[in-house]
This record gives sequence, C-alpha cells and structure tokens, in this order.
Amino acid sequence: MIELKKITEDNFIDAFGLKLAPGQDRFVSHPIRSLAQAYVYREQCQPFGIYAEGKMVGYVIVIYDYDVPEYDIWHMMIDESMQGRGHGSAALDKVLDYIKTKPFGPSGRITLTCNRDNTGALALYKSKGFAETGAADEDEIELSMTVD
Amino acid sequence: MIELKKITEDNFIDAFGLKLAPGQDRFVSHPIRSLAQAYVYREQCQPFGIYAEGKMVGYVIVIYDYDVPEYDIWHMMIDESMQGRGHGSAALDKVLDYIKTKPFGPSGRITLTCNRDNTGALALYKSKGFAETGAADEDEIELSMTVD
Repeated sequence: MIELKKITEDNFIDAFGLKLAPGQDRFVSHPIRSLAQAYVYREQCQPFGIYAEGKMVGYVIVIYDYDVPEYDIWHMMIDESMQGRGHGSAALDKVLDYIKTKPFGPSGRITLTCNRDNTGALALYKSKGFAETGAADEDEIELSMTVD
Repeated sequence: MIELKKITEDNFIDAFGLKLAPGQDRFVSHPIRSLAQAYVYREQCQPFGIYAEGKMVGYVIVIYDYDVPEYDIWHMMIDESMQGRGHGSAALDKVLDYIKTKPFGPSGRITLTCNRDNTGALALYKSKGFAETGAADEDEIELSMTVD
C-alpha cells in the first residue's frame, strides 16, 4: 500500500536521508535539491514523500507551470534500498490521482522529462500513458499525457 | 556595499552555486540544504542572498522561533572566493537591521549557534554584541543578544 504524504517539518529529515541508487544521481536530483527548488516555487508546487507501510521510501514533486499551462512531475525517486518492488509504479498512480484533483489550475496536460538512458523509468512512464512529445534537451526527453 | 536580497526563482541558482571554503562544510550547511529547510519553515523564515556590487557572494537565513520566541540566524556563509573582505561583518549588520523590523513577531531576542572551533565566526558574532548563553550541543555553542 503506497501513500503520498506532503513534506512538512515532521518528515523532511526522512526525505533528506533518501538515497539515490548508484548511477541514478546523474538522472535525478536528490530530494534536498528538489526541496530547495520547492522553496522558490512554493506557491505552485507540492512535494511528497512516497510511503510504503508507513515508511518513507521515495520522493516526488508536482509543480504547476502557469505559462503552458500544465502539471509537471519532477524528481521522482525511490530509495536505492526499496527499488524493484513496484513502488515507483504505485506511486505514479497516486501522483496522477493527485493531479486529477487539479490542485493548482485547470490544465489536464501532464509533462515530465526523463533521460533517454533511464530505460526503466521510461518504460514505467509509457505504461501509464505518457508519450514522447519529440522535445528534448540533450539526453533529457519530454513525455506528456492528458487527463480529464 | 553589501545588500541582502530575498531568494526567489530569479536568483536561487546563484545560491545553489555558492561554495563553502574547505573545512567550513563541517560548520555550516550549504545554501541548498538550507533552502530545503526553508521550504518546510516557509511561513516563518526568510532566506537571503548576500550581495556585493550586485553579485551574490553569500547566503543567510533568518527564522522566527515562535516557541521561545526569538529570531534565529542560520547558515550564514560567504563564498570561499569572497572571504576576508569584511563581507560577513557587513552582511551581519544588514541581518540585524532586518530583524529589527520584526518581520515575523515581536521578540527582540536573537540567537545563533556556532561551532566552538569556528573562531573567526565566533569573534565576528561577539564583536556585534552576541554573548555565549552557556547552552551547547556538543561543539555547537549558542550565542544570543537582544535588540529593541
């Protein structure tokens, strides 16, 4: 049973302690760096801890881009010790459920980027309905889907 | 001429790029980690870039502790390439001026902690009127002063 819980003063230390798996640090920002960005975008984003059986096992942030407009999913990660159990897939379902509540604005467009070498994550995103838009920034490719 | 400017989406990347001097990383959190804390304490804190001649040369965060109550100065640092020019002293004057405006609450007590081996910082704080309270957490000692 995967849950998302908002990052607050009660659980941020757990997020600080999450560990990216070896090699994944070149694909994903650490939650500390992500929360630093959350400070400046605090009016338009929501960082979450990903919980399995009451323990924080990962992190993700949802940000609303008012310019497009669209929801962006950033910095999703599962702690290196908790990978390979389907937590990423279950968490992504919860993230999509959250975005469908349209917490920041009415757009139904959801966008994320993924390194083209991060094959596991790419397969996961495509399994949920994300498709490549054709946009890319070097090896970081953009994927998007639309929800009601 | 030293100025404090609030950290926003326009300048946070400069804060991310500030460098602690060798050895100071054991005394002071990097601004990235500090801004991650600023996210969870966003209703009671204000992070600043310290600017000299229009360039960000350091970082400091002011947080209001409603429980004491008091203003706390956290994570003040000057980039390793910009030290030894009096920027820390000038910035601390600006921080005290800011706190005197009582942006979060009426307390006139100002507290900070400093590693007892961080002799340069200790001398600076004492020159501004801070005195040791006697409280300590291992090598991290507490200093306090009161302003009107």
